[in-house]
Amino acid sequence: MSETEALRDRAAGLDKADELGALRERFVLDEVVYLDGNSLGALPASVPGRVADVVGREWGRLRIRSWTESGWWTAPERIGDRIAPLVGAAAGQIVVGDSTSVNVFKAVVGAVRLSGGPQAGRDEILVDASTFPTDGYIAESAARMTGCTLRPLAPADMPGAAGPRTAAALVNHVDYRTGRLHDLPGITAAVRDAGGLAVWDLCHSAGALPVGLDAHGVDLAVGCTYKYLNGGPGSPAYLYVAERHQGAFDSPLPGWNSHAEPFGMRAGYAPVDGARRGRVGTPDILSMLALEEALTVWDGVSVEAVRAKSLALTDFFLECVAAHVPAGLVASVTPAVHAERGSQVALRCDRADEVMDELITRGVVGDFRAPDVLRFGFTPLYVGFAEVERAARVLGEVVRG
Amino acid sequence: MSETEALRDRAAGLDKADELGALRERFVLDEVVYLDGNSLGALPASVPGRVADVVGREWGRLRIRSWTESGWWTAPERIGDRIAPLVGAAAGQIVVGDSTSVNVFKAVVGAVRLSGGPQAGRDEILVDASTFPTDGYIAESAARMTGCTLRPLAPADMPGAAGPRTAAALVNHVDYRTGRLHDLPGITAAVRDAGGLAVWDLCHSAGALPVGLDAHGVDLAVGCTYKYLNGGPGSPAYLYVAERHQGAFDSPLPGWNSHAEPFGMRAGYAPVDGARRGRVGTPDILSMLALEEALTVWDGVSVEAVRAKSLALTDFFLECVAAHVPAGLVASVTPAVHAERGSQVALRCDRADEVMDELITRGVVGDFRAPDVLRFGFTPLYVGFAEVERAARVLGEVVRG
Repeated sequence: MSETEALRDRAAGLDKADELGALRERFVLDEVVYLDGNSLGALPASVPGRVADVVGREWGRLRIRSWTESGWWTAPERIGDRIAPLVGAAAGQIVVGDSTSVNVFKAVVGAVRLSGGPQAGRDEILVDASTFPTDGYIAESAARMTGCTLRPLAPADMPGAAGPRTAAALVNHVDYRTGRLHDLPGITAAVRDAGGLAVWDLCHSAGALPVGLDAHGVDLAVGCTYKYLNGGPGSPAYLYVAERHQGAFDSPLPGWNSHAEPFGMRAGYAPVDGARRGRVGTPDILSMLALEEALTVWDGVSVEAVRAKSLALTDFFLECVAAHVPAGLVASVTPAVHAERGSQVALRCDRADEVMDELITRGVVGDFRAPDVLRFGFTPLYVGFAEVERAARVLGEVVRG
Repeated sequence: MSETEALRDRAAGLDKADELGALRERFVLDEVVYLDGNSLGALPASVPGRVADVVGREWGRLRIRSWTESGWWTAPERIGDRIAPLVGAAAGQIVVGDSTSVNVFKAVVGAVRLSGGPQAGRDEILVDASTFPTDGYIAESAARMTGCTLRPLAPADMPGAAGPRTAAALVNHVDYRTGRLHDLPGITAAVRDAGGLAVWDLCHSAGALPVGLDAHGVDLAVGCTYKYLNGGPGSPAYLYVAERHQGAFDSPLPGWNSHAEPFGMRAGYAPVDGARRGRVGTPDILSMLALEEALTVWDGVSVEAVRAKSLALTDFFLECVAAHVPAGLVASVTPAVHAERGSQVALRCDRADEVMDELITRGVVGDFRAPDVLRFGFTPLYVGFAEVERAARVLGEVVRG
């Protein structure tokens, strides 16, 4: 038996034993090996019917009545409660709406204010130096508008750096490029012990691994819903404000949806209690209700089982890459240690942009991240082991040229 | 012939002569008299098919490839250019995305910075005292975060109040409650002459009457797209930044979508030129492309013809109300003068909330605005004169009790 045959046999056995394997039927998929669910999750099969109903009946027939009769008005907090168990949060702390960038702004400004801010001598915002760029840009704006200074650091250095000047720390749970999983419990505790607040960006972890927001005492968090949560292109992001902070949470975007009496049309602003305080303007209902339907694929699924499969998928991919790709042509920048790995594998490679184009042409879809990274995301709900073997094999063919 | 019969005859004649009458076929409508298009526009008939294609094919089959192949990435500015002629703007000045509230924040902070702000002695933001509440709440936050003070005023008093301390003025083109149309050219000029910048909220005017953003030298403007533009529930709002201000426009929400090289993933922020500088995070594609399709109902339609019909509809409604409703039971708070009237009629009435509930039960849908206003919006693209007569007649029956 050749090495390739042996790997294929192993893949078949792993697929057969996969307790999550049947979930693939909940998605619209085809012969393409789709390893880009960490950029845009695949379409859940029940979403088209639900969206057609929202458009045709709720908007088309009920029109304005749907704000109450179809539950549109309460969608942001209702869907937040649906996301909550996936990130280890009790109900009432997450609200859905706006983009991740806008939520980073709310969360970082909110964190600075909760910390006391410059008036209390807290005038530094620590930010993950390798962050997804938008987080850094928005944190810089938040710093400028609150009288703080931005201090970029490796997340591992944050516990040592946090001190009396720390207002907030903005950190990605999983690095978008390398796939490194950062130490959420440790960094959160260190920032809290220093008197600041930690804001976590969960874009690359929610839906792929247990987050444990409540268990680890996270202060604030944001995340998108179009990656491992499969909400659709540009589906609304979410904001988590821990219950203990909600009463003092002071949003920089106090839109009418966060008013205690939104239809009172009062000239003075009075914020509502609870997670709704993170709402701003009228929610984009089509995108939001598509997301709500997409979340039904999680019915009966445990995040722990997803994590176990995720690690098995990335382990197997690394093994197949070692077998199929000649030594030296690619190098993994994703940590080998499970405790430091998200649900993706990033491989450094010459001409990575051209290699990815060719992979896509041959039916293996990942993405390229400048300057030299091939990024492969593994969504445990719909990626199988035979696909993983095939992806590595095609990669070997492509890089051999 | 009774007065009622005479009004019905008049309505039939007006409908027959209505050059926009055939546009009703472009919408999904029924026997309900829908006078709430100023809250949520009716469903354009071609939208369900387009949304099904976006979900099923673009997301479901092409997945991540659609960001380029289906034109998702460029949708915000492409759709902005589609809105532009409806508000009298040349291409390249409008970008679609986020909620109205979030765009008010971008626009007001941007205006303060363009004016020089407190460092230049400009530390006041004038705001329409009867504004839709969210504008006031967000302007207050913008003032707080830029070191300014908010000064609420009747729009008519703004020209006299604008002076060397004026950084910005935020005004609604049409008042959401009374339907009063404010003097956009005059206020814009007065604020500009004082060295400040005017920010217009077009939620209740865009799609109902000519706005003339370029012709009147407006600096910045925002608006929603779910009222007279029929984009669907919570469809994304838009931001207009006049071309002359774009180079210096300094957004408080500098998300990665507004970077000169968004996929360069650079640590430092460098804003792109043009309208795209108003973008923030990943756009909500389902809502955005539904809006794009909804805008096709404007093909071949002139805003001037829409305005003419709008005034004819509101004139006729006021006439029918005078005929059908016993004197003294309702009082219009909408200006009688055409130059001061938007596309709605607001009637003050006892027990207005109960009256509106009963109207809705009897198939006439408007809305109630606290504390005592019945609000009826007239969308010239799909409301006819016979419907107007019927609405007034049913109102008369309801208030008679």
